[in-house]
Amino acid sequence: MTSAVDRKMESYIEELGDSRALTLYRKLPKGKKLRTKLIFKIAGESQEAIDVASTVEMIHLASLLHDDVIDGATTRRGKISVNASDGDKSAIMLGDILYSKAFYQLTDMSPQIAKIISNAVILLSLGELADVELSSKFHTNKEAYLKMLYQKTASLMEASAEVGAILARKDRELFREYGKNLGIAFQMIDDILDITSDSKTLGKPALHDFIEGKVTLPYIYLYESLDREEREYLKSLHKKRLSEDEALWIKGKMRENRVVERAYAEAKALVEEAIKLMDSVGEEGLSDIARAMIEREF
Amino acid sequence: MTSAVDRKMESYIEELGDSRALTLYRKLPKGKKLRTKLIFKIAGESQEAIDVASTVEMIHLASLLHDDVIDGATTRRGKISVNASDGDKSAIMLGDILYSKAFYQLTDMSPQIAKIISNAVILLSLGELADVELSSKFHTNKEAYLKMLYQKTASLMEASAEVGAILARKDRELFREYGKNLGIAFQMIDDILDITSDSKTLGKPALHDFIEGKVTLPYIYLYESLDREEREYLKSLHKKRLSEDEALWIKGKMRENRVVERAYAEAKALVEEAIKLMDSVGEEGLSDIARAMIEREF
Repeated sequence: MTSAVDRKMESYIEELGDSRALTLYRKLPKGKKLRTKLIFKIAGESQEAIDVASTVEMIHLASLLHDDVIDGATTRRGKISVNASDGDKSAIMLGDILYSKAFYQLTDMSPQIAKIISNAVILLSLGELADVELSSKFHTNKEAYLKMLYQKTASLMEASAEVGAILARKDRELFREYGKNLGIAFQMIDDILDITSDSKTLGKPALHDFIEGKVTLPYIYLYESLDREEREYLKSLHKKRLSEDEALWIKGKMRENRVVERAYAEAKALVEEAIKLMDSVGEEGLSDIARAMIEREF
Repeated sequence: MTSAVDRKMESYIEELGDSRALTLYRKLPKGKKLRTKLIFKIAGESQEAIDVASTVEMIHLASLLHDDVIDGATTRRGKISVNASDGDKSAIMLGDILYSKAFYQLTDMSPQIAKIISNAVILLSLGELADVELSSKFHTNKEAYLKMLYQKTASLMEASAEVGAILARKDRELFREYGKNLGIAFQMIDDILDITSDSKTLGKPALHDFIEGKVTLPYIYLYESLDREEREYLKSLHKKRLSEDEALWIKGKMRENRVVERAYAEAKALVEEAIKLMDSVGEEGLSDIARAMIEREF
């Protein structure tokens, strides 16, 4: 039950004895807790697993707070984001408070676990910095994009799976690999959903990523498929509020060149690799998590 | 030699293997390293002390990066600040990278030391959040102000002194108290210098704090000394770009009511307490550090 993690996090924040921080914290939507589910599925719901998952989720919340400031987001999971309701300053600081409290709690865990999790935070911060740079101008650098995606999204899932395996005395490397594949595929599919979902399902305008400057995999593939003139046109639309016609042109060209299918196949291959890894050790629950991810609504 | 700490920090950042982060990091002015000096003076310049001081200085740099974003500062130690040169996003992320790398390095130290330092980071983040709130409107809450000042500035000095004492197997509590007094006095004097120094010496406009919304101790004392009409006038000047006349009125009233002297006496009492603590254990070098602080230029 992920609610044990919610209670634990709340008690961590209460321990700080700061009513302003607690009030701000309570405004955060707590989300699906995918990383907790991973840890629980691997390690069971022991007290140790709850403690570790709580630090991981606090770190995840902190990174989202800073991410929303950086993206100038106004909503988070359908609710108004803290940067929008209470200002960037409060959002940055609440993020720092959650990070530092999580690190404080890590000092009570084994150095091995503390190292894996704090290393993931380094990676996710580096990924966020790379994202800022990659989003500043149009690019077609698939390698840089995938590295950023791994750092920003997959590193904490990879760490969660590895730490879960350590708690359960299972094969670290294998679960680590599983978590990494799952994390990369997760973000790839998120990127695809930004293109294929309508704005109502998504809670944000369609093609939002490209408008925000993010050149995700389907756009890189699209660029590669276009002729010279079309490439220039695509570049001219980058980071722009798109008219209905412009958005339709992008979506039409994407359909024509089957770029979403290509990106989806790539995500699917990673998920299948993850399923294979878990099947090899009889972890059907974890295979199911991977399977559910690739079957998210398109 | 604090340069060993500069080299260590640089190598920590190089280890990340991220040229963008390294380039940004190299733009940071490395400052006086007061916390390193404290640690070295207490514990000597062992490799252990260098390692601890390097994590503390990285944390300090991270907090300044976020602080400058929050204050919208354009300079830091006379150089253009990273938020001004490379944008808020990069400054927030470089801060997160420095925090997480510091925490990662802490996992190689004793849990006792890691706990003290990470607790200080919680406090300084809470202090920064409190500062945001206190600066949002005029207040005369001395207690809240002093608590914020302790959290935001003194907590990391307190932790540095305590950790230094642990490394040197000296009296933790005594050195902790010394570091706390020193840290609070340091910030009180900084607040006074913002009033008494001219803009050239300070590298920022005079009365900058009040213009930015920060109601420091001299302003609280001034308010208490004024009559009802003058109080309203002072409040009307809060968080405003001040005309020459308005600035002169504030400074004149401060002189008339000797509020700077009163704030200075308070800082001095803390420093004298710190000196007494160090004299009691024959730590003359540390008494000298405290003495030098109170004798900064007025």
